[in-house]
Amino acid sequence: GYAKVDHCRSAHQGFPEVIFGLGKRAEQIGAIFQRLAEKNNPVLATRCDEDAYQAVQSLVPQATYHAVARVISYQLPDLAEGQGFGKIAVLSAGTADLPVAEEAVITARAMGCYVEPIYDVGVAGLHRLLDHREKLAEMDALVVVAGMEGALASVVGGMSERPVIAVPTSVGYGANFGGLAALLSMLNSCAVGVGVVNIDNGFGGAALAATIVRSSYRRSQAKAE
Amino acid sequence: GYAKVDHCRSAHQGFPEVIFGLGKRAEQIGAIFQRLAEKNNPVLATRCDEDAYQAVQSLVPQATYHAVARVISYQLPDLAEGQGFGKIAVLSAGTADLPVAEEAVITARAMGCYVEPIYDVGVAGLHRLLDHREKLAEMDALVVVAGMEGALASVVGGMSERPVIAVPTSVGYGANFGGLAALLSMLNSCAVGVGVVNIDNGFGGAALAATIVRSSYRRSQAKAE
Amino acid sequence: GYAKVDHCRSAHQGFPEVIFGLGKRAEQIGAIFQRLAEKNNPVLATRCDEDAYQAVQSLVPQATYHAVARVISYQLPDLAEGQGFGKIAVLSAGTADLPVAEEAVITARAMGCYVEPIYDVGVAGLHRLLDHREKLAEMDALVVVAGMEGALASVVGGMSERPVIAVPTSVGYGANFGGLAALLSMLNSCAVGVGVVNIDNGFGGAALAATIVRSSYRRSQAKAE
Amino acid sequence: GYAKVDHCRSAHQGFPEVIFGLGKRAEQIGAIFQRLAEKNNPVLATRCDEDAYQAVQSLVPQATYHAVARVISYQLPDLAEGQGFGKIAVLSAGTADLPVAEEAVITARAMGCYVEPIYDVGVAGLHRLLDHREKLAEMDALVVVAGMEGALASVVGGMSERPVIAVPTSVGYGANFGGLAALLSMLNSCAVGVGVVNIDNGFGGAALAATIVRSSYRRSQAKAE
Amino acid sequence: GYAKVDHCRSAHQGFPEVIFGLGKRAEQIGAIFQRLAEKNNPVLATRCDEDAYQAVQSLVPQATYHAVARVISYQLPDLAEGQGFGKIAVLSAGTADLPVAEEAVITARAMGCYVEPIYDVGVAGLHRLLDHREKLAEMDALVVVAGMEGALASVVGGMSERPVIAVPTSVGYGANFGGLAALLSMLNSCAVGVGVVNIDNGFGGAALAATIVRSSYRRSQAKAE
Amino acid sequence: GYAKVDHCRSAHQGFPEVIFGLGKRAEQIGAIFQRLAEKNNPVLATRCDEDAYQAVQSLVPQATYHAVARVISYQLPDLAEGQGFGKIAVLSAGTADLPVAEEAVITARAMGCYVEPIYDVGVAGLHRLLDHREKLAEMDALVVVAGMEGALASVVGGMSERPVIAVPTSVGYGANFGGLAALLSMLNSCAVGVGVVNIDNGFGGAALAATIVRSSYRRSQAKAE
Amino acid sequence: GYAKVDHCRSAHQGFPEVIFGLGKRAEQIGAIFQRLAEKNNPVLATRCDEDAYQAVQSLVPQATYHAVARVISYQLPDLAEGQGFGKIAVLSAGTADLPVAEEAVITARAMGCYVEPIYDVGVAGLHRLLDHREKLAEMDALVVVAGMEGALASVVGGMSERPVIAVPTSVGYGANFGGLAALLSMLNSCAVGVGVVNIDNGFGGAALAATIVRSSYRRSQAKAE
Amino acid sequence: GYAKVDHCRSAHQGFPEVIFGLGKRAEQIGAIFQRLAEKNNPVLATRCDEDAYQAVQSLVPQATYHAVARVISYQLPDLAEGQGFGKIAVLSAGTADLPVAEEAVITARAMGCYVEPIYDVGVAGLHRLLDHREKLAEMDALVVVAGMEGALASVVGGMSERPVIAVPTSVGYGANFGGLAALLSMLNSCAVGVGVVNIDNGFGGAALAATIVRSSYRRSQAKAE
Ligand SMILES: Nc1ncnc2c1ncn2[C@@H]1O[C@H](COP(=O)(O)O)[C@@H](O)[C@H]1O
Ligand SMILES: Nc1ncnc2c1ncn2[C@@H]1O[C@H](COP(=O)(O)O)[C@@H](O)[C@H]1O
Ligand SMILES: Nc1ncnc2c1ncn2[C@@H]1O[C@H](COP(=O)(O)O)[C@@H](O)[C@H]1O
Ligand SMILES: Nc1ncnc2c1ncn2[C@@H]1O[C@H](COP(=O)(O)O)[C@@H](O)[C@H]1O
Ligand SMILES: [Mg+2]
Ligand SMILES: [Mg+2]
Ligand SMILES: [Mg+2]
Ligand SMILES: [Mg+2]
Ligand SMILES: [Mg+2]
Ligand SMILES: [Mg+2]
Ligand SMILES: [Mg+2]
Ligand SMILES: [Mg+2]
Repeated sequence: GYAKVDHCRSAHQGFPEVIFGLGKRAEQIGAIFQRLAEKNNPVLATRCDEDAYQAVQSLVPQATYHAVARVISYQLPDLAEGQGFGKIAVLSAGTADLPVAEEAVITARAMGCYVEPIYDVGVAGLHRLLDHREKLAEMDALVVVAGMEGALASVVGGMSERPVIAVPTSVGYGANFGGLAALLSMLNSCAVGVGVVNIDNGFGGAALAATIVRSSYRRSQAKAE
Repeated sequence: GYAKVDHCRSAHQGFPEVIFGLGKRAEQIGAIFQRLAEKNNPVLATRCDEDAYQAVQSLVPQATYHAVARVISYQLPDLAEGQGFGKIAVLSAGTADLPVAEEAVITARAMGCYVEPIYDVGVAGLHRLLDHREKLAEMDALVVVAGMEGALASVVGGMSERPVIAVPTSVGYGANFGGLAALLSMLNSCAVGVGVVNIDNGFGGAALAATIVRSSYRRSQAKAE
Repeated sequence: GYAKVDHCRSAHQGFPEVIFGLGKRAEQIGAIFQRLAEKNNPVLATRCDEDAYQAVQSLVPQATYHAVARVISYQLPDLAEGQGFGKIAVLSAGTADLPVAEEAVITARAMGCYVEPIYDVGVAGLHRLLDHREKLAEMDALVVVAGMEGALASVVGGMSERPVIAVPTSVGYGANFGGLAALLSMLNSCAVGVGVVNIDNGFGGAALAATIVRSSYRRSQAKAE
Repeated sequence: GYAKVDHCRSAHQGFPEVIFGLGKRAEQIGAIFQRLAEKNNPVLATRCDEDAYQAVQSLVPQATYHAVARVISYQLPDLAEGQGFGKIAVLSAGTADLPVAEEAVITARAMGCYVEPIYDVGVAGLHRLLDHREKLAEMDALVVVAGMEGALASVVGGMSERPVIAVPTSVGYGANFGGLAALLSMLNSCAVGVGVVNIDNGFGGAALAATIVRSSYRRSQAKAE
Repeated sequence: GYAKVDHCRSAHQGFPEVIFGLGKRAEQIGAIFQRLAEKNNPVLATRCDEDAYQAVQSLVPQATYHAVARVISYQLPDLAEGQGFGKIAVLSAGTADLPVAEEAVITARAMGCYVEPIYDVGVAGLHRLLDHREKLAEMDALVVVAGMEGALASVVGGMSERPVIAVPTSVGYGANFGGLAALLSMLNSCAVGVGVVNIDNGFGGAALAATIVRSSYRRSQAKAE
Repeated sequence: GYAKVDHCRSAHQGFPEVIFGLGKRAEQIGAIFQRLAEKNNPVLATRCDEDAYQAVQSLVPQATYHAVARVISYQLPDLAEGQGFGKIAVLSAGTADLPVAEEAVITARAMGCYVEPIYDVGVAGLHRLLDHREKLAEMDALVVVAGMEGALASVVGGMSERPVIAVPTSVGYGANFGGLAALLSMLNSCAVGVGVVNIDNGFGGAALAATIVRSSYRRSQAKAE
Repeated sequence: GYAKVDHCRSAHQGFPEVIFGLGKRAEQIGAIFQRLAEKNNPVLATRCDEDAYQAVQSLVPQATYHAVARVISYQLPDLAEGQGFGKIAVLSAGTADLPVAEEAVITARAMGCYVEPIYDVGVAGLHRLLDHREKLAEMDALVVVAGMEGALASVVGGMSERPVIAVPTSVGYGANFGGLAALLSMLNSCAVGVGVVNIDNGFGGAALAATIVRSSYRRSQAKAE
Repeated sequence: GYAKVDHCRSAHQGFPEVIFGLGKRAEQIGAIFQRLAEKNNPVLATRCDEDAYQAVQSLVPQATYHAVARVISYQLPDLAEGQGFGKIAVLSAGTADLPVAEEAVITARAMGCYVEPIYDVGVAGLHRLLDHREKLAEMDALVVVAGMEGALASVVGGMSERPVIAVPTSVGYGANFGGLAALLSMLNSCAVGVGVVNIDNGFGGAALAATIVRSSYRRSQAKAE
């Protein structure tokens, strides 16, 4: 019945299977998760609440719940710096952006990248961001998560020569219109090298960054041979 | 007939008379301008093209045209630093924001303030803005003019303890939607002490800044007595 | 862990520390509040419900809850007229605008200003507003809080020579679109000297007014010396 | 062929025939106008430029052009106070609203009402409006024409016990969005007794007012008998 | 304290006092209602749920609850045909529009008009509407309540020579956008003599109709004398 | 070079080749038209001005220009009633909708259908539409073209048991927002059996109707064998 | 009282009676359902939850609940391939679109069509769709149900010569804006022969498809005779 | 004076200097271009008409004009396959998307990448796209340019494991809303590995792709050493 695998799913070969939890019932998520875990592949379920985790855990006891990120994982690789396809920094502007940022962090790790989280570097306190200049220069791709006015993407884009993936969040109220303010801000960024994904799509932002980094890794492997 | 003075006009006592040129014909602007100039007060006409200037100049030969700002002025005061009600900096992000920034500069001068223009300090090249840190600290109010993603207002708001008046511009295309991107960005600014005026309203931004500075001036005069 | 201070609200030197409660859990607010209160500074937490207050009070017993404003305060200064940085009037149009107006009142007080609340002066009953003419003339800045059609900002802006900070509220329904009607109305005000902040942002409106008033105060102090 | 009468404007018995000029070519307007004039009825053509008038006048020499209103009329009744179905005041906020206000004035006259134009009474200069209080009390219906923030409708609605028809105009720029600001403002008016028509629809506003006044006239005639 | 009377309220002399229940707590509504009822005037409270009614009834036992309309009334006049200021028909398109239509019916009655409800006459079944042709011709004003595509206002406006007040409702889903579809439809109506009020504003639609009818009544009284 | 055939084009086997003229230069249209005409198939070019026709005619002298519809045709079949795939009525509300309606008429003819144009049957004058009741019952599909409030689609959908294809037009101004009002109205139609195409897409509406009619024709052919 | 039949859903002769459950209380739905079932016709109630079903079943024990589709049916015909008016395929993009797709399936069956459900054929995994090519060619009409970017309608429209009815769903988040993304995508489809219905309107999409198929069936019957 | 270099386009070290022509006068573009060309670096000016080219060529005779792309270039590198930082395919849906696609092609070349243009592969004719499957697999990054419903990005994203940069165009009319339809479609793509830039931003899309490819190139160089 409903234990059908998500159709937008199986991104690339070697990437984990991913379940999108939003709008699925706990039992559905549990059943899909179990079926995927049986293949002994890494599995990720995003946008899941505690109930979904209960349902998954009763079937797949080794599954882990990442509460802030609202993600359930199975066989998440644990990479040290220098391991995996490459390095991705996930920057976030404010505390309220954390769930989206953490979803991005776990997704990028699940997709085989080493991740550096750089949080609370919103542009209203610029010095905190500037302190991370050198760290940013070592990365292979940057994921910038920001709500409200979303200005962080432009500032980071201006500072760095790496590809920047901007993830607007719905953090804000009033004339924020559910993330529209940050989305438009990021689409209109005058910095060079910035691409945008959907509002609150931490998964998608990290998946694009991982796609970039993996493409690059394969090429460098090819070259090295 | 049409030589009626603008009703939104007569701001404050001691401020110049102002004509809003948009949607008025050259002859109308000429006739209104002449009538106001006859009172021997400073006069300003905003959003005026060359034709309007011809019409004004034939009636008021001493009138001056500021082509970039699209403003016609008469008896504009020429203040040195330290003179007038106070100091206002007008910052702008990019070249295309100049007409709005210049409208703000001339308005603030016409309203009796010393003005410091600080142009081309968009956030994608942060160092240019950071170079002006000390200058900003000397000001009584800041007017920030920016289009595209409008991020400059947040960054300046975070750097400074002065009141910041943000003027979004319609510079941009596509998902800019005629200045909506910058407007929303500025309204959602997480910096403290930022107020916003209408898209492209250089006049209004400078008029608010001048109102702030004049209020403050009067108070300091009262105190000094 | 989460007991991180809000980066958007760390206003200016001498201003209280401020926590933005929306989207934070009661325990988070409690923990942050306690840490800030330990520095023996005034503290403010906005957009907090009763639960948040319980969490705060169990850690900081001297904290006070302002139920209408949904604000928790600690060491809020109690200024008499003539004390503090200056005088701010907070005007509101209707009963339903009270929570936003009260947030503004408490914020302005916390930032060291004497505040005069002038409520229920919506434009459909003009005489009530006109009765306050003289009071308004004594103020250093005005904060105008209004929902529905938001016309109050224009009328007050036309009546007064002081800086007016307009705060649109989401009060209304239907074609109000969550405060968009009042927001657009205020941005299009033809009165001179009006700046706008985000919908329902009583904190931001008062913070800008306090920034203006404090800037002016310092200047008058300097002058007096 | 195209000399077909506009189906949207064939109002009520005894009302003039009306042509909507927008999107019709000069010759089309001329041909329709002539055919209607031949019935020896009053005729009105709105939204017409000089070219259209040339085309009409060559066929119907007695036609008159009202340049500001962009209206061509034929056999427009010229009523003194006390004549016709009743009295309608047309109020407007600013100079730029004149074309729409004048379209309303001529329409109401053409529909048999005595009209009192009250112009330039925008809310940023309230005293001008308050001066007309008594005049307003004598009217049978009020048409309020305003662009920018459209606040005039609320203020007039609060002052008067007569039906108020609000006509938002597209006067403004930026976050005005082609009259949306005034439209939303008027729809959200908290004054009792205010109805709204389309942006720039001076014809429609006056036609509704005339419909109200004529309905009332017939009733008073019936009563008197 | 909160027992302040609504500021948008006091419509016209002789009209009932009205409380807008949305966003007020039950006790607030109770307290305001009691204070108004003590003046021995008719009182109306709109947008009230059962709880609000309990609160009112415990203080004002004679108050009545109209469950579909969500209105609480006190001393509502009960007029027979021919009594009161005049006749108003309230037409509605579908079953789901009933709450708004009933709010209009009770408001118009409270304001002294005889009301004829004509329900379920949506345009997809035209014959039902056409059956009421003669009835409509006897009315002094028409209130048309419709959601979804809101086409009823245009069809009624085309059929009748009476003033039509169109009330769009938020009935619908998807591309209805909370009543926007019906609102735009009504504002763009090509029928002559149609005015529009806010989405779901049954009160406002009826109040305008009653204002029209009362104005007309006074005139016919004056004439008869 | 640019003489590439349109990629959205070659609808169905046996349908004419179609060029979409909008945004193509006269020479481009000429060159594409010629190449398609050489195959000796019917050809249609929509959204073409006089210049485009000159360019086409110099290369394909037998091409015909339909000025109101802004369409250039070649070998357009001329079908009598009873011939072709079936019967389609194209209804339009007002004069200004004619270009879109005529585009639909010519497209449906080019696609092998017999077409009955029924113009100027807007809902504000219902009787004109009701006169065509019997005619409508004979059709195989209906195309309804309407701007402003777009109510015609609902009324026709309610009257008829045939499939109705609704084509909103951009006819209108102000709160019409370029056809959005009619589009939303049609999407929210409560009549059964109504499908909608893009604003001003007379081609698309007729093409869907023709697809329906042709599908049906083939089936009846199959059955008859 | 409320047991009035929905006027929007009284489709065509021979079609079932349909109740629109959204916004109706369980008892209302029960009462209407019972009254319709008494006529011994097929009955359908859409957008109904479990509670509504309880209410119906207690009155009409033979009624069936389709949980995913949220539909209650009575005397639903069970057609084999080749029976009924014709064949309709209902295609859907993802799992979350199922409720809308199933509503379409049951509606089309209730209206006398044989239905082929083709699920989970979203464009990000094209091969699954391409596998159904031959099946599609046998259909009389296609209903395409898709949320998120709604691209499936264009791809199916390009592949098939049958009429395509596109049903956008509100599946998605962020810049999906409640189905707006899929709606606009489908309205702008460059494929020939695609009509669109309201967001989430599975009923409406299937009803149009059934109207098309029945029209065609009658014609083929007529021909065969 | 105005001969200031554009601050938004000074990409990365080794990338060409870029001028954004929109909103600049021909002389301005000429002067800036000359100053940049004097440094003997590659120079690019986008969004330039013939007049701008005349102005440039009179100062920099070696400059080249790319008419379709509206780009002026100087010292554009001419790379063979295998040369440069990597391979980028630029795919476009329809003829009208060509200017944006060509802007992307020239930008990517100017930034040192080998470019493969793949045009006219819109989803309504899927086979044309499928023919390029193998070619796509050889690329390092893909730029997808599409207007109308923008579905191409999802289909390509589903087919390929490379990073996809989606560029929505403003090609379309009506409910396209200046490219909004394609923009939302692309942001909601359910394919993994898709990032979006602003409407019509061929430059930005190619610049991001080139940033990705160059980052990867450097890494593979580092590895090889
Ligand atoms: N948080 C997320 N936001 C957006 N897309 C996601 C997210 N998590 C997973 N996905 C994608 O959504 C797919 C499942 O979509 P569906 O089949 O509609 O449930 C996954 O396989 C991912 O490609
Ligand atoms: N550039 C401008 N933008 C906005 N408002 C302006 C501008 N210039 C002048 N104004 C205001 O508009 C008033 C005239 O408005 P109006 O009577 O509508 O023509 C002036 O007196 C100013 O208060
Ligand atoms: N259902 C209603 N919709 C809109 N306005 C209403 C409604 N009921 C009452 N009102 C108006 O709102 C006023 C109260 O508004 P407020 O002071 O903001 O609470 C009443 O006195 C009426 O004029
Ligand atoms: N007036 C029209 N509106 C919408 N689409 C049209 C129109 N005329 C032609 N078309 C379609 O657009 C295709 C050409 O689109 P393109 O390749 O983008 O130029 C034609 O083959 C038709 O399918
Ligand atoms: Mg960069
Ligand atoms: Mg600051
Ligand atoms: Mg003022
Ligand atoms: Mg009134
Ligand atoms: Mg009428
Ligand atoms: Mg029908
Ligand atoms: Mg097709
Ligand atoms: Mg991919």
